[in-house]
Amino acid sequence: MRKYVIGIDYGTDSCRALVVDSENGREIASAVCHYPRWKKGLYCDARSQRYRQHPLDYTESLEKAVREALAAISAEMPGEICALAFDTTGSTPVLTDAQGTPLALTARFAGEPDAMFVLWKDHTAIPEAAEINAAAKKADTDYTLYSGGIYSAEWAWAKVLHILKTNPAVADAAYAWVEHCDWMCALLTGNTRPEELLRSRCAAGHKGLWHAAWGGWPPAAFFDGLRPGLGRFAERMSPETHTAERIAGGLCGEWAARLGLPEGIPVAVGAVDAHIGAVGAGIRPGVLTRIMGTSTCDIVVAPAGKLDGAVRGICGQVDGSVLPGYVGMEAGQSAFGDVYAWFRDLLMWPVRELLPERADLAEDVIPHLSQQAAAIDPRESSVLALDWLNGRRTPDANQLLTGALTGLTLGTSAPMIFRALVEATAFGSRAIAERFTGEGVEIRSILAIGGIAVKSPFVMQTLSDVLGMPIRVVRYDQTCALGAAMCAAVAAGIYPTLEAAQAAMGVGEYVDYTPDPERRAFYEKQYERYAALGRFMELQTND
Amino acid sequence: MRKYVIGIDYGTDSCRALVVDSENGREIASAVCHYPRWKKGLYCDARSQRYRQHPLDYTESLEKAVREALAAISAEMPGEICALAFDTTGSTPVLTDAQGTPLALTARFAGEPDAMFVLWKDHTAIPEAAEINAAAKKADTDYTLYSGGIYSAEWAWAKVLHILKTNPAVADAAYAWVEHCDWMCALLTGNTRPEELLRSRCAAGHKGLWHAAWGGWPPAAFFDGLRPGLGRFAERMSPETHTAERIAGGLCGEWAARLGLPEGIPVAVGAVDAHIGAVGAGIRPGVLTRIMGTSTCDIVVAPAGKLDGAVRGICGQVDGSVLPGYVGMEAGQSAFGDVYAWFRDLLMWPVRELLPERADLAEDVIPHLSQQAAAIDPRESSVLALDWLNGRRTPDANQLLTGALTGLTLGTSAPMIFRALVEATAFGSRAIAERFTGEGVEIRSILAIGGIAVKSPFVMQTLSDVLGMPIRVVRYDQTCALGAAMCAAVAAGIYPTLEAAQAAMGVGEYVDYTPDPERRAFYEKQYERYAALGRFMELQTND
Repeated sequence: MRKYVIGIDYGTDSCRALVVDSENGREIASAVCHYPRWKKGLYCDARSQRYRQHPLDYTESLEKAVREALAAISAEMPGEICALAFDTTGSTPVLTDAQGTPLALTARFAGEPDAMFVLWKDHTAIPEAAEINAAAKKADTDYTLYSGGIYSAEWAWAKVLHILKTNPAVADAAYAWVEHCDWMCALLTGNTRPEELLRSRCAAGHKGLWHAAWGGWPPAAFFDGLRPGLGRFAERMSPETHTAERIAGGLCGEWAARLGLPEGIPVAVGAVDAHIGAVGAGIRPGVLTRIMGTSTCDIVVAPAGKLDGAVRGICGQVDGSVLPGYVGMEAGQSAFGDVYAWFRDLLMWPVRELLPERADLAEDVIPHLSQQAAAIDPRESSVLALDWLNGRRTPDANQLLTGALTGLTLGTSAPMIFRALVEATAFGSRAIAERFTGEGVEIRSILAIGGIAVKSPFVMQTLSDVLGMPIRVVRYDQTCALGAAMCAAVAAGIYPTLEAAQAAMGVGEYVDYTPDPERRAFYEKQYERYAALGRFMELQTND
Repeated sequence: MRKYVIGIDYGTDSCRALVVDSENGREIASAVCHYPRWKKGLYCDARSQRYRQHPLDYTESLEKAVREALAAISAEMPGEICALAFDTTGSTPVLTDAQGTPLALTARFAGEPDAMFVLWKDHTAIPEAAEINAAAKKADTDYTLYSGGIYSAEWAWAKVLHILKTNPAVADAAYAWVEHCDWMCALLTGNTRPEELLRSRCAAGHKGLWHAAWGGWPPAAFFDGLRPGLGRFAERMSPETHTAERIAGGLCGEWAARLGLPEGIPVAVGAVDAHIGAVGAGIRPGVLTRIMGTSTCDIVVAPAGKLDGAVRGICGQVDGSVLPGYVGMEAGQSAFGDVYAWFRDLLMWPVRELLPERADLAEDVIPHLSQQAAAIDPRESSVLALDWLNGRRTPDANQLLTGALTGLTLGTSAPMIFRALVEATAFGSRAIAERFTGEGVEIRSILAIGGIAVKSPFVMQTLSDVLGMPIRVVRYDQTCALGAAMCAAVAAGIYPTLEAAQAAMGVGEYVDYTPDPERRAFYEKQYERYAALGRFMELQTND
């Protein structure tokens, strides 16, 4: 009998169940189920950037996806399911009662958005994030130190504080909060009591201000200073957190029956999707792993104990958040593919205005631009751009910064500008890589996943030239679910470590890029010009 | 009998004859004749930017245009033609023999481009201009001092030196050189001998290094230092030059017959088109007169004796080059309407590439952009542009400078960028106005002629807001020929001065713009940001 493991990936829109052979990572079966209520747009309000998800969307889609995947396993390939693990979006917390039941599942709060999961991209808590930052800077200990120095409105404490301030009924009923990834494990192992359920090191550390330096969560007094009563939530969570490949418990009878799986098989702790995706892609020390789409999420690991203090201006550093024994770090660019899409939409203005029936031309614009831009010798173009069209997330978050195009002449063409924009997003990537290396985190190469990485050879070659590093693009588009399956395989005892699981189960389909020596040399100088332009613009912005 | 005068305007492509009533400037008749050889593209080479015009193109088109205009005078409006005057492009010199005959009109050099007029926009003499500048900086006297400190490849001495260096046969045969405007007067008054023909103060001063401070032309030794033999050309020109309303002589019998005009009527000295156009538009002290098209040519006059030395970084200052008794000064922006056309063409890229059969959409782009840009409150847009897409002509010529767009976000639209480009061209105008006022030349208002001035109310309103000055747009499109007619009226003794002719014969059709107080206040601050951006970019460029 072959040993199969299940990786379950909860994305923004759907739940995917991936069954893989634990021996080699081969995909045996896969199924996706979209969240039914979310798909209808329920409980959301785009204008106020309120994005909520109902817990039943998660449980119903899980049951459907797992059952469908199991049914798809070929009769010629029989195997035994040994374990399962989750990754979910994050920070996506929910308020619960004393039993750990999301309030939206109680009769009183059925249909109440504030009693549901607050999706990662919900921006209702911007004022509360500002309050947390102000309080952290005033406290004896800056609890944002290992979160890059700035707490985000997308993270759990800001969201919980916002609901406490704005919804007294939910505030009164709320006993605790739990992250989406942790609730899944708690539910499937039948251990949902807030004080007892196992919490993900990754979610707690990157999104919840948890750090060993202050013994876990910040003290209740810090939170009560923000709003009386907020501190109880910190007191009701164990100060212990767990890495993603650890066993959260055995699959409980109820869920074994609902999913059609053997009772008691290990359920791993799980973590946030980007970090688990990095595991699935093959992250290891010295390799900056990038999820590249409209924006980027950049993950890097460094041997624990090698880092001397906090890395300035990134999105958090957490011991074990990606691989046990390593400090996991997160960074990212606020806009990457979005910069190219902006330019495409700019160029499409005359068609939208004057010939709207041919708006379909938009699809061909970026491929055509890429083809012509690739033929331009960068040394012969005077255009230099700045990529901060959506502000700058890292290094050193500053959402007020803006983009720029310089070196324009009457001979400057659309492909020249497109090339400069691609170079600028690559320079932005280099600024992140240089911050890591400047703070003692080694980076020797890039591992890339995501839509832009797979679809844009021109962008990836330019990135390689600008970084002066080899880039490996993983062509497999289910690295998150595969990373979860690796966690499950370790939890099942098939491999002693996540690194061993990566070695055995990693994806073999790659495209490699290496820097062109001449362009690399040119970009060394051009990056200095980009940096000088950026310094000037930052001074002007802060002025 | 009414007293009519003829203004003859030689443009880049055609000769126009305008018959006006000297009492009130009313247009009585007008006719245009395109240069027949030029129209066929003869003697030119766009790749090397060689643009030459055959002297027969000028004489044939003159005869045709004047005869056609005379024929169009209504029988109900009989009048007597009292005088005529010319304006031409410049610097547009030709090499002649000892009789003052352009070499292309001699049998030996028929068909030889180097024996023809070298049109103002011919750029074959770029190396020779550099040689002249280097020599001027080394000489005891900097003969470029009143030409803004930099001699241009578009001006006569560079062009003559270039032909001397590259065409030995023409060099050997060349006895003298003459500007187009001066040759016309010489020819029609039968006084073509190089030593004796009357030379235009305007052309000599702005394009030929002539200045009273060094007794006229620079000494032969200066030119012989550049190339032995070049000095003879300076020696063969009278050190005296003449303002545009002075009588060059009486119309000779041959040309009276050819044109169908009375023999002996006064022919005025004439001058370069932009300066005469400023006269026709109504230039007076304190009024910056702008010819606004793809680029701008800006003319201003200040009472002679009021200026203390040389104005830095403009295109020349010449006593009497526009109005007698005043120092005429020239400046300009290298790109104005060309900036908007560049953005239109950029936006049209997808259509040109993917739907070329609808390239006609281009016509509607700028009107649509203008309409939407006008509705944007400038205080709510973050976009700030730099207008140097074709380098900077004034103040302080630097052709290496480039344009920029800053403050870009994912929400930045095409109309926002267009508005910023319009503001940037207005800021560039303000930099010129500030240079003049900073050097003691008063400017209280703007008088504008040309395509952009007439067609773009949005641009002109923005210019008024940015300059904080009223703008009067002259809606008449023949101000150059009208200015020449004013010169003819003074030469005929109908008015004692050009100012009196302007007062009587000026155009009455205006559109006025006045600054909006709120936008003006905002642009005061925004101009500082533009200036700071410009200083940074200039440092980067010179680096």
